[in-house]
Amino acid sequence: MSKKRVVIAGMGFGGLRAAKALSGSDVELIMIDRNNYHLFQPLLYQVATAGLEEEAVAYPLRALTRRWRGSSFMLAEISSVDLDGKRVLTDAGPVKYDYLVVAAGSRTNYFGMESVAAHAFDLKRLDQAEDLRNHILLMFEHASRETDSHRRSALLTFVIVGGGPTGVEFAGALRELIVYVLSQDHPTISAAETRIVLVEAADSLLTAMPADLRKYACEKLQSMGVEVLLDSRVVGATAESVELFGGTVISSHTLFWSAGVAAAELAGYLKGVERGVAGRIVVQPDLTLLNYPEVFVVGDMACCYEEGVPLPMMAPVASQQGDYAARMILARERGGALPPFHYFDKGSMATIGKSSAVAAAAGFKFRGYVAWLAWLLLHLYYLIGFRNRLVVMMNWTYAYWFQERQVRLITAKKRRAVSV
Amino acid sequence: MSKKRVVIAGMGFGGLRAAKALSGSDVELIMIDRNNYHLFQPLLYQVATAGLEEEAVAYPLRALTRRWRGSSFMLAEISSVDLDGKRVLTDAGPVKYDYLVVAAGSRTNYFGMESVAAHAFDLKRLDQAEDLRNHILLMFEHASRETDSHRRSALLTFVIVGGGPTGVEFAGALRELIVYVLSQDHPTISAAETRIVLVEAADSLLTAMPADLRKYACEKLQSMGVEVLLDSRVVGATAESVELFGGTVISSHTLFWSAGVAAAELAGYLKGVERGVAGRIVVQPDLTLLNYPEVFVVGDMACCYEEGVPLPMMAPVASQQGDYAARMILARERGGALPPFHYFDKGSMATIGKSSAVAAAAGFKFRGYVAWLAWLLLHLYYLIGFRNRLVVMMNWTYAYWFQERQVRLITAKKRRAVSV
Repeated sequence: MSKKRVVIAGMGFGGLRAAKALSGSDVELIMIDRNNYHLFQPLLYQVATAGLEEEAVAYPLRALTRRWRGSSFMLAEISSVDLDGKRVLTDAGPVKYDYLVVAAGSRTNYFGMESVAAHAFDLKRLDQAEDLRNHILLMFEHASRETDSHRRSALLTFVIVGGGPTGVEFAGALRELIVYVLSQDHPTISAAETRIVLVEAADSLLTAMPADLRKYACEKLQSMGVEVLLDSRVVGATAESVELFGGTVISSHTLFWSAGVAAAELAGYLKGVERGVAGRIVVQPDLTLLNYPEVFVVGDMACCYEEGVPLPMMAPVASQQGDYAARMILARERGGALPPFHYFDKGSMATIGKSSAVAAAAGFKFRGYVAWLAWLLLHLYYLIGFRNRLVVMMNWTYAYWFQERQVRLITAKKRRAVSV
Repeated sequence: MSKKRVVIAGMGFGGLRAAKALSGSDVELIMIDRNNYHLFQPLLYQVATAGLEEEAVAYPLRALTRRWRGSSFMLAEISSVDLDGKRVLTDAGPVKYDYLVVAAGSRTNYFGMESVAAHAFDLKRLDQAEDLRNHILLMFEHASRETDSHRRSALLTFVIVGGGPTGVEFAGALRELIVYVLSQDHPTISAAETRIVLVEAADSLLTAMPADLRKYACEKLQSMGVEVLLDSRVVGATAESVELFGGTVISSHTLFWSAGVAAAELAGYLKGVERGVAGRIVVQPDLTLLNYPEVFVVGDMACCYEEGVPLPMMAPVASQQGDYAARMILARERGGALPPFHYFDKGSMATIGKSSAVAAAAGFKFRGYVAWLAWLLLHLYYLIGFRNRLVVMMNWTYAYWFQERQVRLITAKKRRAVSV
């Protein structure tokens, strides 16, 4: 009897964990991704703020297939899934499967605001982080020789939309980049004349956190010099301005958007599946598709209800679901089954700045230095690859001691199209 | 009396050394470059062969201006020099000078062969190294699923033109990347079916080296599996082939060109100056322009004759000339002068592969492990920045121990244009 083939579509947190759980087992494992690396998205904002090099947050997938016998990797863009024919359709041809784990993640959701989509930066891909870093550094280069004061202040104003962990962490890291590095690099620019405006639609930051941590995070950011606008929404943008609901216009050349995600485009290409909020695919309690028990959907793409509410789109959910799907496949192959998926909430955390973070876990709450240290250690732990951990630790130590960030290169150049 | 202003146009090896020699002195120092970093070009080929991350071979110039009082940096593209008005003309406006050090380096010379220029890769800029790395890795991805055997073998054939240090070092590093990493990453591709062809017009590699070292380098490369074609010239190329003089056509999707350099475009924009071979600007024995004693030209751009022969276009010449120009400026300010510039030849070296290099210095010749170790140490020494040294050393150690290269990411994506 030939081995059963498991195809994993997308190698983010969900796909990676599924692959790990299947490695060494008696199935044929094919991993497909449009990139040849797994990306550690939670640290992308540090690439964008010149704290880490790109390579430190990416891990080559073929380094895994080398280790895992019976596994292989395919660099391809997935266009759809032929559910009845049990084939994944890609730009490199169709791939048959016995089991499929769909884990293609999410994309940024601008809620149909085209002007915002056209001008905002977001952080989903590695090249976006590099683009944003180049842009921020370039704003300071331009500002340092701008003679018009209004224009200069617009160049030095940064608007961040979304007060979730990404927005908060990015705001803090950007502020530190400006205070410790860029205002030193540019003697004619003082940190005081720069502005970072964090815009949040709700009435507090980090809404998933307990009230006192929300308050701490907000006050900490403000004391660092970040302007926090609560109960505010961005409704439009140009290359040089951001418009808020109510008519206020902020002159700014930089708009960072972290206020919404939706399921990746692939979710829309699967025929006849039910879609939930944010375009996510509704799954059964065992994470499979209705009528297609061999197809699992995990992570941001899956709309999985627990107690009547869809699980949040975040890495821990994706990881646990990927692991569950893999274990379910192995159980079924042995003729068994698993109880329905249940998300184990380990809590959440966000770093704000040097020696400062908030964390809530298992009924406990931490803030300040302890939470910050926990944040560092956990991120190092979850980062994949010995070398990446080493490089990240080195960068963090260096930044902590020397108040410096070495990776402040403007690498923007016309690129050459890569083709065969 | 106000301070004299020295402008340095171009922050390669020549400009950097001049700036260093002027730092701390009583002049106003303005450094101009089109990039915000100094690039350590001798290691670019290791970025292209996935051995080093880009950030490790670049050093942010504003990290220097932070340390050096009275110095400043300007990110700008230089369009020309108004010699009579003593102004450097840039896309960010004109910059007046009392002294000028022109150090804009060189560009790749395809000797008018347009088809080669259109299809060849070269290594002058950081983004080119990333592009070449992406391209090489992508060739293996495509080959691993190519069913046509002729096309597959073309994808796995790499033609390198130029048997100088860059061509030799690139050939060796690429071969090791394929043998130790890529053929392991791709179980269906064996190193034996890949081809690296090194094409050199002269009758030996590394023509600046003593005969026995030339022979050693050639035999070593061949024993590693590199095909060396001497007395051969590339005369044309398409996206899928390389044509040699005499009519031979090699099917290959990758052509790397390191067979010629010429002075950077700026040399042609200076009115009324005499140009020598490869478009280089002819300088006086003190490296100044005839009739413009306040303008120095150093490095690849300068055509400086010693014993009737122009000095070679290489980093040590540029560094020594940059240093000389700076010392001459300081001497003149004190009412003195220096004897004419004289190049002190410290020798040359090239690494071929793991534990293997050739070096000739001060009448001594080294090869094998000792030369290799000397090569490593000297490159670490000349690399600027503590952090860069650390990262490079870590990468080398990692590669040496684990036969691995972590930086094998395919980062090609459509980039967003960076603009204000």
